[in-house]
Amino acid sequence: MFYIIGLGLGDPEDITVKGLNIIKQCERVYLESYTSILSCGQEKLEEFYGRKLILADREMVEQRADEILDGAENQSIAFLVVGDPFGATTHTDLLLRAKEKGIQTSVVHNASIMNAVGCCGLQLYHFGETVSIPYWDDNWKPDSFYDKIAANLKHGLHTLCLLDIKVKEPTLESLMKKKREYMPPRFMSVSEAAGQLLEIVSKKSADDGNEEEQHKLSENSLLVGLARVGHESQQIVACSLRDMKNVDLGPPLHSLIIPNGRLHPLETEFLQQFAELDLQKS
Amino acid sequence: MFYIIGLGLGDPEDITVKGLNIIKQCERVYLESYTSILSCGQEKLEEFYGRKLILADREMVEQRADEILDGAENQSIAFLVVGDPFGATTHTDLLLRAKEKGIQTSVVHNASIMNAVGCCGLQLYHFGETVSIPYWDDNWKPDSFYDKIAANLKHGLHTLCLLDIKVKEPTLESLMKKKREYMPPRFMSVSEAAGQLLEIVSKKSADDGNEEEQHKLSENSLLVGLARVGHESQQIVACSLRDMKNVDLGPPLHSLIIPNGRLHPLETEFLQQFAELDLQKS
Repeated sequence: MFYIIGLGLGDPEDITVKGLNIIKQCERVYLESYTSILSCGQEKLEEFYGRKLILADREMVEQRADEILDGAENQSIAFLVVGDPFGATTHTDLLLRAKEKGIQTSVVHNASIMNAVGCCGLQLYHFGETVSIPYWDDNWKPDSFYDKIAANLKHGLHTLCLLDIKVKEPTLESLMKKKREYMPPRFMSVSEAAGQLLEIVSKKSADDGNEEEQHKLSENSLLVGLARVGHESQQIVACSLRDMKNVDLGPPLHSLIIPNGRLHPLETEFLQQFAELDLQKS
Repeated sequence: MFYIIGLGLGDPEDITVKGLNIIKQCERVYLESYTSILSCGQEKLEEFYGRKLILADREMVEQRADEILDGAENQSIAFLVVGDPFGATTHTDLLLRAKEKGIQTSVVHNASIMNAVGCCGLQLYHFGETVSIPYWDDNWKPDSFYDKIAANLKHGLHTLCLLDIKVKEPTLESLMKKKREYMPPRFMSVSEAAGQLLEIVSKKSADDGNEEEQHKLSENSLLVGLARVGHESQQIVACSLRDMKNVDLGPPLHSLIIPNGRLHPLETEFLQQFAELDLQKS
């Protein structure tokens, strides 16, 4: 049996009782290490489970899936994923490969940022399409996610923005060499994301002038920044896009929400606790 | 401290280790019983936790919140919710009331149907607004959710349809009496939902003829029906809206997904295992 087990939001105790029981009786246990990060570190997990974990990076998952699945016809093999198992396409792909080999599969669900963002008080069923905001560099500044945000705003929907994670990215120079060298991991902050959004907003506002104000992202739009959701050190702040650029929410992971322009009174009331200004007046 | 703890998808072992540890040291533990259902039953939970639970129905949560929060300034009180704590507005409201009283609050997240539907292989970030399909009766057939489905289809987004649950609904006759009598609980099946959708589709297709085919729901549209997600008896079926009306997925809870008309190849490949027909050709 091949198990994919969601670890939830990242504390060792966020695993479900079901997931923990499975881990304890598995032959090998892999820990996926590149689509998200484990806020607590591998050692803490190993201590909590009372067993060793095999770190699975992008190369292993995408190119050596056979190695992971080896023996799962007769043995129990587990693959641990931060959040819920269906948060990333690569995990869906692993399940398909297992099925092709005639291996039985089982999934243990858990919380993920996709549903845990409800903690800011914005109702989950009012969210539209989720977008990913990638890191820009000097030459590459993609902004196609802006159109999705605009479409959500137009339809009165909130947008969850997943912020870029760069883990185990080879350095440009090392791509030429035999031995790969990696850049230090980077996690986009709400401040960095707001900076990129402000650039797009100032460029777009020159282009199109006649959309209704509440359907458009502007530097005055209300944003919600979230850090370390579900952890004791969780932080949430609600402020304008302009102010978000100067917000420091500390260590990763960060997420950003662009609420629609027509909040439900209960949403406003709940968000108020994370705002310095009176949201009812803004 | 007032805790709201998500129970996940409904098996006793779906609770997180963190949640279970909190329950064990709480003064009182409430179990919310009306926005979802517990597939395993209260007794099984009590046995698993080794303690008694207080059932909290709609009347208690909405009208006697003070009773639930009583003493939480100094004691630990837990409120258990199927899925994730932020799945229903009433729970957000409870947190606000606690904060008004100066009571500290803490939330333990878990999987909910909102993220667990990823198990059919449709990518979560391609979902648009979630809709609720209510039970119709002879006089009341609301269909406003159809416009949201249509808007999602137009923007290439999947729609998760949450199906109606009627728990502890007073009978019409008993509303006149002093003593309330309740109807038996009802849970909408994918077949019932498909029946209502077909009625809307046949009505609407008479009204508007010139929308592009792939942006419109029709009796040939591909739908995905899910039952008892996350449980051993989980069932998923992918078929046309027409055929979904005749599908029997057994006991509750059921959910329905209306995928967009432009599936990603990996989504098609994963969905194929739940379909009788070849999805690549349809």
